[in-house]
Amino acid sequence: MLRNSVKSLLHLRNYHTVLKRKAFKELTNNDINNFRKIIGDNYVKEKDIDSYNEDWMKWYKGKSKCVLLPKCMEEISEIVKYCYKENIAIVPQSGNTGLVGGSIPMFDETILSLRRLRNNFTFDQTSGIVECDAGFILEEINDKLKEHGYMMPIDLGAKGSCFIGGNVATCAGGIRLIKFGNIHANILGLDAVIGDKSGSILRMGSSLRKDNTDLHLTHLFVGSEGQLGIIGNVKILAVPYPNGISTALLSVNTFDECKKVLQLAKTQLGENLTSFEFLDSDTLHCVSEFSKIPIPFNKIPQFALVIECASSEKDTSSKKMENFLSMCYDKNLVDDGIMTNGFNEGRGIWNIREGAPLSVTKEGYVYKYDMSLPIDYFYELNNTMKKYLNDDKEKLGILRICSYGHLGDGNVHFNIISKHSTYDIYNRVHPYIYKWIVDHKGSISAEHGIGQLKQKYMSIGKDSTQMSISRSIKNLFDPKGILNPYKFVN
Amino acid sequence: MLRNSVKSLLHLRNYHTVLKRKAFKELTNNDINNFRKIIGDNYVKEKDIDSYNEDWMKWYKGKSKCVLLPKCMEEISEIVKYCYKENIAIVPQSGNTGLVGGSIPMFDETILSLRRLRNNFTFDQTSGIVECDAGFILEEINDKLKEHGYMMPIDLGAKGSCFIGGNVATCAGGIRLIKFGNIHANILGLDAVIGDKSGSILRMGSSLRKDNTDLHLTHLFVGSEGQLGIIGNVKILAVPYPNGISTALLSVNTFDECKKVLQLAKTQLGENLTSFEFLDSDTLHCVSEFSKIPIPFNKIPQFALVIECASSEKDTSSKKMENFLSMCYDKNLVDDGIMTNGFNEGRGIWNIREGAPLSVTKEGYVYKYDMSLPIDYFYELNNTMKKYLNDDKEKLGILRICSYGHLGDGNVHFNIISKHSTYDIYNRVHPYIYKWIVDHKGSISAEHGIGQLKQKYMSIGKDSTQMSISRSIKNLFDPKGILNPYKFVN
Repeated sequence: MLRNSVKSLLHLRNYHTVLKRKAFKELTNNDINNFRKIIGDNYVKEKDIDSYNEDWMKWYKGKSKCVLLPKCMEEISEIVKYCYKENIAIVPQSGNTGLVGGSIPMFDETILSLRRLRNNFTFDQTSGIVECDAGFILEEINDKLKEHGYMMPIDLGAKGSCFIGGNVATCAGGIRLIKFGNIHANILGLDAVIGDKSGSILRMGSSLRKDNTDLHLTHLFVGSEGQLGIIGNVKILAVPYPNGISTALLSVNTFDECKKVLQLAKTQLGENLTSFEFLDSDTLHCVSEFSKIPIPFNKIPQFALVIECASSEKDTSSKKMENFLSMCYDKNLVDDGIMTNGFNEGRGIWNIREGAPLSVTKEGYVYKYDMSLPIDYFYELNNTMKKYLNDDKEKLGILRICSYGHLGDGNVHFNIISKHSTYDIYNRVHPYIYKWIVDHKGSISAEHGIGQLKQKYMSIGKDSTQMSISRSIKNLFDPKGILNPYKFVN
Repeated sequence: MLRNSVKSLLHLRNYHTVLKRKAFKELTNNDINNFRKIIGDNYVKEKDIDSYNEDWMKWYKGKSKCVLLPKCMEEISEIVKYCYKENIAIVPQSGNTGLVGGSIPMFDETILSLRRLRNNFTFDQTSGIVECDAGFILEEINDKLKEHGYMMPIDLGAKGSCFIGGNVATCAGGIRLIKFGNIHANILGLDAVIGDKSGSILRMGSSLRKDNTDLHLTHLFVGSEGQLGIIGNVKILAVPYPNGISTALLSVNTFDECKKVLQLAKTQLGENLTSFEFLDSDTLHCVSEFSKIPIPFNKIPQFALVIECASSEKDTSSKKMENFLSMCYDKNLVDDGIMTNGFNEGRGIWNIREGAPLSVTKEGYVYKYDMSLPIDYFYELNNTMKKYLNDDKEKLGILRICSYGHLGDGNVHFNIISKHSTYDIYNRVHPYIYKWIVDHKGSISAEHGIGQLKQKYMSIGKDSTQMSISRSIKNLFDPKGILNPYKFVN
């Protein structure tokens, strides 16, 4: 659905790719037949597989000839064992909601979709621990947990389509990370099929909050982007569903004041602070102008902050938010603000923040960056890039440069919007922007991962011994390199 | 200080040990001189090193001839490089507060103490991120953070002596894990010297909350018990210091009611629940009888629960705790209870819980076990072992079997107290108890680790492929196996 409304950078598709195909076997009819024997005729797809070969932003396109849809770990194990023997490359694919091409083949790798891996689901009410197969959709898990007064600790825009397996494999972030931490904070164990000769199923960690009986291999799979194995089942700690929730939208004049509001929110809202989000005026302009989402202020502010506060007891969140907002006004930190109580009541505010990613794609072609920066440099990136690109602005057709993101986590989504879909912008921006980020102690990939998009930049500022250790670990789990080749640590 | 009051199991010291020394080099005068060149004469100790060769419980004793006290990562790197070349085994030692002999040499390994690694300490008030060297004491870090309105997310009995480096290397748990998660939830990066030819310094992760630019090697070091490298510097997210705190001690008649109180605490106290601790009547008897710590009930209850609730706003914790206790009474879940508000006011209650580990050592010789279990089996272990040992009770001199621990995390500290210090008890109990734990989906090591103590049992219930992957990872970081040999994944 989203697909048609996004201005695609189709022509740039090959910009990031490694051009030489490795010597993996090309699929034969015999291979297809063997796959059919493992998982059944209906679950080896050769037709109508465009939606698997392409990401939702239409930035990446693979040429896979075959999609496999196994239903259990044992079937995945058999597939991997066969592919190991035959030297067939595999791309594990979860909900296919990524933004770095991590689950799209580079060439003709066989796609292993987790779409049918959704048989086992258990929830323990006393411990709050969910055990479920990797193919469950994040929102679906939330719906199941809600009956028991619980919810998942992660929440992101793609929640209606992304699978929990992919969330773990990419260490997905999102809007509640400031409160509940990232996947590492909540994952307790996982099962994965690794790329060895036997397609071994490793069952790591346990449904226990404390388990120190081995190296913590579970955590090595978090953010491993399908390089070490195919995650089939996860054990995650859910969190209690709040009874009170309050949301505020604040208009702030300077970035320095945004920082001060953040400091105040941390100490004043404390354990109840669940989100601290940021949008600059250019982003707000896009949201208002191109998506027609109302911004409830007289004029578009320099900066807007979306702050959410939740509590197990109904009234605590509203009381705390009111006190906090009073303090913000008393200290002259905010220009204007609105506040709502209740889940549905907060939707209007969240629509502004959640509308940002799509809104910035509507004016032209958008070059998106996902980065972490120490708070002091969070918005300096925007000013720096505006200066850096100023002389070529006309030539490159740059319409707008804007930032939004998770200020509370230091995670900025930085966007360059241009009239043109051209390599020139990439050539001008790279590797300058990545170097600047690393020089300022930031990360060139905050929550979107490396995938295809940033593969050739991931070593910037990294020590060669560390890089070689990562590759050796990859080699241990996947000796022939058949899992998700050409990307990340490959 | 503790040392003299603990009935030691000195005679059992060799029970768990591997008897054959590996072919590491024995230290020569030339080696000592070379160490002196690296770190200076004063910091190579050959005399008065008993306190390094022995743990505080006097359960383990090494025969190291030399303790090295480097002051920075570069010195550690030079030491490791030298030891690699000369094939000298090293035991990294942090605060030496462990309970499984992980930081005590098995034979004559050279001890590398982190005691002087305490030069760098920074705290960023906006992000709440601490960066500090591994040799800082946990309590000391807390004191520094308190000035800024923050505290560390972990808290354990040994806080006055344990170092943050050791906390990370052992994935220390403690009494606040139910609220803030374990080390994985809060660690962002660390620097470590690995055991390769160059003594390479790896700088993993970053002072950022989101960083997906490599495999998450930081997390592989959490709980690695000195097998992969020597952790020299850590980056950890601190948490705001609460303004309100309430503590309750509840007397409960059945374990089933304890479980119900836990469920209620999770939903009612929600984000404010910071501890949920458990003591059975035998433990309470020891606390009262042998440590003379007052138990404020008419008689020793069957079970006691210590529940803590904290909030950023002063009154929230007390209000929520009061409501929660009313509900417990209304549902007839508790027999009696007391509640206090304020940090100091809660000391009396905490003394009971914190007095447990020492109190159970005062009646006889204590055989301690640290395990995780699904809540349903948490106390069944106690009943099972009482039955199992019943016939031999007299012969084995068993005085008491008792459990206490972190019920909220499913972590039980199980103790057998005997008149005798004898192998017979171990021979009767092992491996029965470990097998029972694994059969009931528990973990034979919750928060104390494997070290020397459980090395030969760690493979129970584990897949051989996983074990071999752990060993291969160890081999990658430490090809000659010079780091902390004979223990854990070695």
